[in-house]
This record gives sequence, structure tokens and C-alpha cells, in this order.
Amino acid sequence: MLRIAYFGPEGTFTEQAARALAPGEDLTPYETIRLALDAVRDGAADGACIPIENSVEGVVPATLDGLGGGSALVAVAEAVLPIRFSVLARAGATEIRTVASHPHALAQVREWLEANLPHATAVAASSTAAAAVGVVEGTYDAAVSAPVAIEHYPLEELATGIADVGDAQTRFLLVRRPGELPEPTGADRTSIVAAAENRTGTLAQLLSELAGRAINLTRLDARPVRDSFGEYRFFIDFEGHLAEPRIADALTALRRRCHLRFLGSHPRADQLPATIEPGAGNQDFLDARAWVDAVLKGEDA
Amino acid sequence: MLRIAYFGPEGTFTEQAARALAPGEDLTPYETIRLALDAVRDGAADGACIPIENSVEGVVPATLDGLGGGSALVAVAEAVLPIRFSVLARAGATEIRTVASHPHALAQVREWLEANLPHATAVAASSTAAAAVGVVEGTYDAAVSAPVAIEHYPLEELATGIADVGDAQTRFLLVRRPGELPEPTGADRTSIVAAAENRTGTLAQLLSELAGRAINLTRLDARPVRDSFGEYRFFIDFEGHLAEPRIADALTALRRRCHLRFLGSHPRADQLPATIEPGAGNQDFLDARAWVDAVLKGEDA
Repeated sequence: MLRIAYFGPEGTFTEQAARALAPGEDLTPYETIRLALDAVRDGAADGACIPIENSVEGVVPATLDGLGGGSALVAVAEAVLPIRFSVLARAGATEIRTVASHPHALAQVREWLEANLPHATAVAASSTAAAAVGVVEGTYDAAVSAPVAIEHYPLEELATGIADVGDAQTRFLLVRRPGELPEPTGADRTSIVAAAENRTGTLAQLLSELAGRAINLTRLDARPVRDSFGEYRFFIDFEGHLAEPRIADALTALRRRCHLRFLGSHPRADQLPATIEPGAGNQDFLDARAWVDAVLKGEDA
Repeated sequence: MLRIAYFGPEGTFTEQAARALAPGEDLTPYETIRLALDAVRDGAADGACIPIENSVEGVVPATLDGLGGGSALVAVAEAVLPIRFSVLARAGATEIRTVASHPHALAQVREWLEANLPHATAVAASSTAAAAVGVVEGTYDAAVSAPVAIEHYPLEELATGIADVGDAQTRFLLVRRPGELPEPTGADRTSIVAAAENRTGTLAQLLSELAGRAINLTRLDARPVRDSFGEYRFFIDFEGHLAEPRIADALTALRRRCHLRFLGSHPRADQLPATIEPGAGNQDFLDARAWVDAVLKGEDA
């Protein structure tokens, strides 16, 4: 059984993602994203499940910083969860005067609370799971929690599937120490971190290497390096798998131009196949190289 | 006196920024960033002060979404505040058992709390100012707040200038309805939103228009459009002012290639002058255009 660290506490969406990405494995919550990643780095865990981006809140800075620094970790799988909440209360509770949750979660169900529990006061807790604990202990009357919380706490569901914005979702990664890559599927995502000199046109040059090979970006985030404004690491996701010649060719070119860290090639959760333009398929790359080799040997021209 | 909306409540860092950006004006707190922006849009306010990015937490998604949608607003000034907290308690308080603040603020002073108030429990509040209110009301013993909070609440400073990471800072904007632009200073920032088709190489093309004119990027953020993954708006900041020929030329080129919204040209808080490369200065752009015009008239070749 693999030991999988996840960003806890128990009973949050990240635990739900860890169950989906590592079913039947030994799951252990860690207090911060950094601690979960470091557990993999120092061998205490075989892998870690962490959130990477949310369609409402954007990217998770702690995950980018945690993957961009320290020893290298690579993503081997991803899961996308719809963010819909359950409202939990003690069995038989009649009057709900306080509803607790993480401020982000409260923000995402505000309209529902106004419509359904108009007399309840919303109270900020440190996590959706901490709010559920507070209900068990009698501190609050209800908690807005991840659906999985009901499996950890002796509470009842007042409602489930709650979200003001119906299609909010979060993407999670399962990361491991560098090793064998997952097999390419034709619907993969590759992630890199590029740290380049702060020089005019640097990012345009890096992206041109991808664009010139007709590789489609799926995400780009600039994160300041350390704590100073103006110096950035670029976190770039694009379609394709490093085992494909077109992707290996692009990373070879980028490697010459900047400091590069590979963050993994793995199947996309949405299974959308990569866009391949004419002249930019893997066979095109192989054929072109074969022609150059043949010319070099005097066999073609 | 101008009516300036700001992202409240009173007693937060955004109020401090509003005081710095609009000294002596009539400041009114709004509950959300969106409400502050909409107050400017519907004429209830002449301007709004909102946070745009933090060196630790990254960009503020609600600000990007608020500026990218709705009717156009433009930034006319910016302020950068160091994020250092005060710890406030009731006068004469002897024992501090609970310390409340917004979870982000608690995260940024955790080491200080462990060293200085090791027996206090950290409690999450909905804002740094709400925590101070809770201390006044006797709910908590101490609050981690913005320094300006002391001017609103009858509390005493146990400590001030607190931050685990010494140089965390937040940048704030003052935005108004479109109108006369601030004068160029040679140390300006221009901000745009580019919404382009999700086609391979689009972003590389847009950035190449800036790179080809040697215009230096200072920030780039990709935000999903609406709630679906894969469609993005690009928020791009770069050195220079729209009143400069080199910048006007770049925006003319970008306008052909994508949907473009201008978010303002204004002086940089750090007063760093723009990098101008040989052949890419404003006079170079004017001279080149004058030459083309002269050739057209048969006066040069």
C-alpha cells in the first residue's frame, strides 16, 4: 500500500481528491501544502495530493511555490472535482443561528445562505473541516463542508450539492519523486517551471518555442521569485507528453534558453485530446530529423 | 472633495492605501471589491481603491475579474504598502488566550505568535478589522490588524511592525471612469486586458508585439473567462505610458489581433524608469514614421 500525504485536515475536498487519485492507499493529512510535499521529498510518503487551481479563486500560490522550490517533484495524475458543499448540523438541531466555514467557502454559498438560513450568522473558521469539528463540539450550529466530511463527523446533512456558481471546480495533482513517467495517452498535460532572466522579451521567446511547434498552452502563471517584485518564475502547462518527439524537441529548445524544471506529463482529467496541426505531429518531427540525418550521410539532399 | 470607495471594512490595509492615494478625500468602505468598483461605474463614487497583488499571496482574483468585466475603469495611480501588522488588545489586558485575524494574516505572523504568545489560540475572523471589533466586544483577547485599525477602535498596541516575512507588500490601485490620463513621467506602468481566441500560439503572438518594440512586461496573469477551464483573459502590465509613441504603436498592433481593454497608464510607485533599448525609443518611432511619410510624398527614399 502506498503512503499518500495530502493537504488536510481530514474531511476536505483535498481528501476527496486523494481518495479519487489513490483509491485504497494509506492517506495521511498534513497541515500545510509545503509539509505534504516535503513528506514526499524526505521519503515519509510515496506521493502527495494537493490542489493546484480553482476556477473561481485561481491558482494556489502555495502549491506553485512548493513545486518551484525544494527538490524536484513530478505530477503523475490529476483530478478535477466540482466544488459543491454540504451543510452539516447536529442530529435533531432545530434552530440554526450560526453557520461556520472557511471564508472562501462562505463566499461561494452566500446566496444560498441568504435564501435558506436568512437568520443565521456566518462565522469564519480555519477550514471547512474545522467548522464541522466546531459543530460537533457545539461551538457552531452548522458547517459548510466538503461532502466527504459526513464520513468523519457524527453530523447530519441539512443540504448537499450547494454552490452559488454551479460549475466551480478545483484541479488536484498527485505528485511523486522523479521516476518512470505515466504512459502517454494522446490526451496529456505537461507542466514546467521556467526561470528566465528579467530581460525584455524573454517570455515571448519562451512561448514562441512552444508556438513554433504548434504546442497549445493550457495555463500560464507568473509567480514572483522569493519576496521581491519584478523577478518571476513562469509555470507553464501545455498539451502533450514528454515521450512525444514534438514535446521533447520543445523542452530541448527551452532548456538552452532558461533554467527549466520538469513538473510532469500525465493524462488530463477531461481526456481532451491534444490539438495537432499539420506539419507539427510527432511523425513530422521524426521524419524531419531522419531527413537531416540522411543528408548528413550523403543519402539525401 | 472626491468620493472614494474602497474595499472595506474600515481599519484594513486597503483603507491605509486609500488614505495614501486620495489624501483628504471622502473615503467610504464597501463590502466587496466588486461593490467598490460598481460604485464608480454607477457614479456613486468618483474613484475606488482596491488591492491588485500581494508578494506572498499573488494576484487578487476578484480585482482582475472586476476590472475585466463590466464597463471600463482605468487605474490612475498605485500605492505599494509593506504588510506589517499590529497586535491590538483592550487597555490593561493581562492574559491573552485568543488572538483573532483573517486566516491570511494569521499565516503571515504565525512564527511571531509562537515566539511571543505561545499559549494563545489563533482564531479565524472574516477580516483583520472584524478581529479588532471582536476584541472591543470581548469575543477575543487580541487581534492581528492593519496599523490603521488603532485609529478606529479603542484598543492598545501590544506590538507593531510584525511580519514573519519581512518584505511582504501589497500593491493597490486607484481606479476611475475613463477620462484624462495622468501625465507620463518616464517611470510609468500601462495595464491591459487581452481576450484572444483559444488558438495555439495566440499569447506568444501578443507578447511578440510587445517584445518586438522592446517593451518590458512587469506582470502577466491568465484568468479563466467565466467559470470554464481553458478560456482565458490575459492581464498584462508593462513599462511605459500610452502617451508615448512606442506604447501607442504597440496597442495599435495588439488591437488588430485581439479584444483589448485599456486598464490605465500611471506612475509606478517604485519610480523605476522604463528600460529603453537602442532603436526602440519614442523618437525612433517618430523618426521612422516621419521617414515613411516623407517617402510617401516622394521627399525621401
